[in-house]
Amino acid sequence: MLKEWVKEKRPDDETISQRLEIARSELAKRQMLVKEHKLPVLVIMDGWGAAGKGSVLGRVIKNMDPRFFKCETLTEPTSEDLRKPFLYRYFVKIPKEGQFSFYDGSWMESVTNSLLQGDITKKKYKEYLTGIKRFERQLNDNGYLVVKLFFHIDEKTQKKRLDELESSDVTSWRVSDSDRWQNKHYKKCLDVFDEYIEATNQFVAPWYFVDSSSKKWAELQMTEILVASIDTALKNAEAKREAPILQNTFAMKKMPKLADIPLDKTMTDEEYQKELDELQDRLKQLHNEIYHKKIPVIIAYEGWDAAGKGGNIKRIAAALDPRGYEVHPIASPEPAEKARHYLWRFWTRLPKDGHIAIFDRTWYGRVMVERLEGFCSENDWQRAYNEINEFEKELCDWGAVIIKFWVQIDKDTQLERFTDRQNTPEKQWKITDEDWRNREKWDLYEDAVDEMMAKTNTAFAPWHVLESNDKKYARIKALKIVIKSIEKRLEELK
Amino acid sequence: MLKEWVKEKRPDDETISQRLEIARSELAKRQMLVKEHKLPVLVIMDGWGAAGKGSVLGRVIKNMDPRFFKCETLTEPTSEDLRKPFLYRYFVKIPKEGQFSFYDGSWMESVTNSLLQGDITKKKYKEYLTGIKRFERQLNDNGYLVVKLFFHIDEKTQKKRLDELESSDVTSWRVSDSDRWQNKHYKKCLDVFDEYIEATNQFVAPWYFVDSSSKKWAELQMTEILVASIDTALKNAEAKREAPILQNTFAMKKMPKLADIPLDKTMTDEEYQKELDELQDRLKQLHNEIYHKKIPVIIAYEGWDAAGKGGNIKRIAAALDPRGYEVHPIASPEPAEKARHYLWRFWTRLPKDGHIAIFDRTWYGRVMVERLEGFCSENDWQRAYNEINEFEKELCDWGAVIIKFWVQIDKDTQLERFTDRQNTPEKQWKITDEDWRNREKWDLYEDAVDEMMAKTNTAFAPWHVLESNDKKYARIKALKIVIKSIEKRLEELK
Repeated sequence: MLKEWVKEKRPDDETISQRLEIARSELAKRQMLVKEHKLPVLVIMDGWGAAGKGSVLGRVIKNMDPRFFKCETLTEPTSEDLRKPFLYRYFVKIPKEGQFSFYDGSWMESVTNSLLQGDITKKKYKEYLTGIKRFERQLNDNGYLVVKLFFHIDEKTQKKRLDELESSDVTSWRVSDSDRWQNKHYKKCLDVFDEYIEATNQFVAPWYFVDSSSKKWAELQMTEILVASIDTALKNAEAKREAPILQNTFAMKKMPKLADIPLDKTMTDEEYQKELDELQDRLKQLHNEIYHKKIPVIIAYEGWDAAGKGGNIKRIAAALDPRGYEVHPIASPEPAEKARHYLWRFWTRLPKDGHIAIFDRTWYGRVMVERLEGFCSENDWQRAYNEINEFEKELCDWGAVIIKFWVQIDKDTQLERFTDRQNTPEKQWKITDEDWRNREKWDLYEDAVDEMMAKTNTAFAPWHVLESNDKKYARIKALKIVIKSIEKRLEELK
Repeated sequence: MLKEWVKEKRPDDETISQRLEIARSELAKRQMLVKEHKLPVLVIMDGWGAAGKGSVLGRVIKNMDPRFFKCETLTEPTSEDLRKPFLYRYFVKIPKEGQFSFYDGSWMESVTNSLLQGDITKKKYKEYLTGIKRFERQLNDNGYLVVKLFFHIDEKTQKKRLDELESSDVTSWRVSDSDRWQNKHYKKCLDVFDEYIEATNQFVAPWYFVDSSSKKWAELQMTEILVASIDTALKNAEAKREAPILQNTFAMKKMPKLADIPLDKTMTDEEYQKELDELQDRLKQLHNEIYHKKIPVIIAYEGWDAAGKGGNIKRIAAALDPRGYEVHPIASPEPAEKARHYLWRFWTRLPKDGHIAIFDRTWYGRVMVERLEGFCSENDWQRAYNEINEFEKELCDWGAVIIKFWVQIDKDTQLERFTDRQNTPEKQWKITDEDWRNREKWDLYEDAVDEMMAKTNTAFAPWHVLESNDKKYARIKALKIVIKSIEKRLEELK
C-alpha cells in the first residue's frame, strides 16, 4: 500500500496557504461539534523518524482549544507499562467523549520496531496484530473516531534531515540511534511498515498517508483528513449506525444452565476448617511462585446479592501476601469512566505482572445490570459478549491466569439472608432497597446470566459456578479452583 | 525516643492469644464504623529490615473485609515517581473516606535511607522533614486518621533473622543488600531513626512502636493500636473538633485590591501581532531548555467568567511543543475526588519534570466557589490559605516554576461578553445559567478574591493580575510573565 501510494502533487505555496486558511477554520468548527456531540477522537501519528510529526502536530493544535485535547508521547514505555499488557499504555490514555487525544507514536511503532529488532517472533507479532485490530474495531464500535496517520518521507529526504539536525548543537539530540538505523535499513523498514499497514487497514480505522516533504503541506493534509473524518463520524453517529454483532470465533466450553445445577452440597465445620487451613497454606506458596515467575492472576466474582461473594473473597485474600494483591469493588461508573469505553475502568485496574487482582463484580455488568436496566443500547450489550471475550483473550495472551466465578444460591436462600440482614443491626448496611428491587427481577437476571455464561465460557477464561447455599462449601471450592488454575499455568511453563 | 523506649513486657502466649481474640473482633467492628462514618484511615508501617512488617500486616488484614482496604508497597519508586515531587507517590495513594490504606514503607524509609546513604544533604533532609510534617498535619486537619507504626527489633534479633532467611533457598531472596548494610551499621541507623521519629512525632500523627520480637505479639500490638486510634478519631469527628487556623510563616508580597487596578490598558492589532510572534518564538526556545534541564512549570489560571482565560491559555499553548505540556480544565470534583483530600486531584495532575501543566481553574476553588457556595466548612476554607501555600512550597522545593494568573475584567465588560455569547449561536455553549447566577454574587466574589490574593501572594508563587478588558493586552502580558519567570529560574541555576 505505502509503496504503491501515488501522492497528490504538492500544490504551490500560495495554494497551500489558501487551502490551509480554510481548513484551519473548518477544524476549529469541527472541534465545537465534537464537543457538542460528545464524540471521542483518537488521532495516532506514526511515520518515519525526522518526518516532522511533532512540528506538524504543534501547528495543527495551534488552532484548537487546548482544553479539549491531550497530546500523549507514547514512544517509550515506562517501567510500569512494561509490567502490563501490551495495549495497556494505549488503552488507559484514550480520550473521553467530546475530547481529542493525539498519540505521538502508537502500537504500530511498538510492534514494527520489535519485529525489526528481532525482539519478538513472527508468531507473537501476528498475535499482536490480531489484538490491535480488535482494539481499533472495539473503539469504533463503541463510538470512537480513530484516525491513523502515517507521515511519509523518502530515504534521501530522511538522510538529509538527519544530517541537518546533527550538524547543529541545538538539534543534534533529536537524532536517535534508531533514526539512523532506520535510514540505513530504509528498504527493510519500508517492507515491514507496508505489510503492517496492509494488515491493519480496516474500514473501522483506515490508514491515511501524509506526504511530509514540507511542514506546511503536511499540516494541510492532516487538517483536511481530520475535518473529513470528523464529518463522517458525526454523520454515522447521527444516523445511529449500528455495528455488526460478530460471530464467535473462540473455542467455547459447554455450560449448564443455572436451574440445572444442584445446590445441595454441604460441608461440616470440621471438614471446612481442616481443608481451609491446608488450601490457604498451599495458595500462599503459589502466590510466592507467581510473584517470582511474574505471572499475573485475575479473579472475577459475579453472583446473586447475598450469595456470599464478600466472605468468599476474604478466604482467598487471607492466604495472600498483602503486598501482592488488590481487591477492586466495582460499583456504578464515575463520570470520567462513563465518558469512555466501558472496559476502560477495568484496564486501569489491571494488576502488575506477578500480582493478583480480585474483582468484586466485573465487566460482566454490561450484559447483566446495564442490559436489564437499559443503561446501554441493545446493540451495545449484544456486542459485549465478543468484546469481553476479546478483552480476556488479550489478558490471556499477556500471560494472565483468568478465573471467573459465579456465586450461586437459590431464591429461598436469598430471601432468608436478606431477612437476616434486615433484622441484624450490624448487617443492615449490607442490604438496600435496590437489592429488593433486583430480587423482583430474578427471572430476567437468571436468563441474562445463562446467556452470558453460555457466550463467554471460553477455553482460556472459563466460568466456575460456586454452589453457595452452604457458604463453606463454596469457599473451599473457590480455593481449590484458584490453586488448580495457578498450578496448571506453572506446569505449562515448565 | 526509640532508644529510651521501655517496652511492655511480652505476655505469655496464652494471654496474647486471649487478648488477640478480643482485639480482632474489636477491629472488625471498627472497620464497619470507619465505613459508616466515612473516616479515611492511613496506616504507615516502617521499621527494621526483617522486623516482619509484611507477615504482621498479612495477619491483621485477615480479619478485615478486603473490599475496604488497600495495601501499597512503596519501598521502591517507579521511573515515573522519580520525575515527580518527593511526596507524590504517597499523596496519590491516600485512601478515600471509609477506606483503609496500609503503606509498606513510607516517606520515613525514603528520607532516612537517603540521608544514611549520603544521597541528600542535611539541608535537603530538613526541607523534607518540614514537608512531611505539613503533609501529615494536613491529612489530619482534613479528616484523615494517620497511624504511624515503627516495627522494632534489636541488633541481635535482626542478625539472627537475616541469617535464617539466607540459609534457605526459598527465603534467601528476601534479604537485600540494604538489610545487611542496616545490620552492620545498626547503631548509626538507630541514631538516624531516633532523630527522625523525635522530629516527626506530632499530636496530629504520633508514632507508635511495635515490639516485633514475635509475630503474634506484634499483631496484637498493631491491632490494639488501630482500635484505639480509630476510637479517638471517631470521637473527634463526632465532636466536630476544629483544626487551628495557623499563622502565616511564608514571606508575602503586597497585593493591590482588584478595585484599585486600572483596566484601561489596550494594544493595537499591529503591536499585538508583532509582539505575539516574537514572544511565542522566545517561549518555544525556553520550552526546549526547561525540557533539557528537567524543570517543571505550573501555570495556574483563575479569573472572572468570560474574562478570556481560554484565549489566553491558547496563546501560551500555541508556543509549546505539544509533547511537553498539558492543559487541565478543572470542573467540580468527581465522586472519587470528593472522597479525598481536596488537593488530591491536583497532585494526580502534576506534570513530570521538564513538562508544563496549565490549569484552567485551580485549587483556589476552595477559597472561592467552595467557600461562597458552602461546599466546605468555614474552618476548611480558612485553613486552606495556608494549606495551599504549603502545597505550592512543596512544588517550589521540588524545583517547579509556579505562575499564578488572575484574569481581571470589570463588571460592564463581563455583561457585554455574556450578552454577546448569548446572541451568537457558536458561542452559546460557553454561557450557562450558572454564569449569570455567579455574576449576581460579584461583590462577594471580589471580596473573596482580594482575601485570597492577599493571603497567598507568596514570594515563591506570586499572583499576577492580567488586565483583560483588552484581551490582546492580557495575552501579551501573560506571555511576558511566563518568559520572565522561566528565564529567572534558568538564571538561578547557572
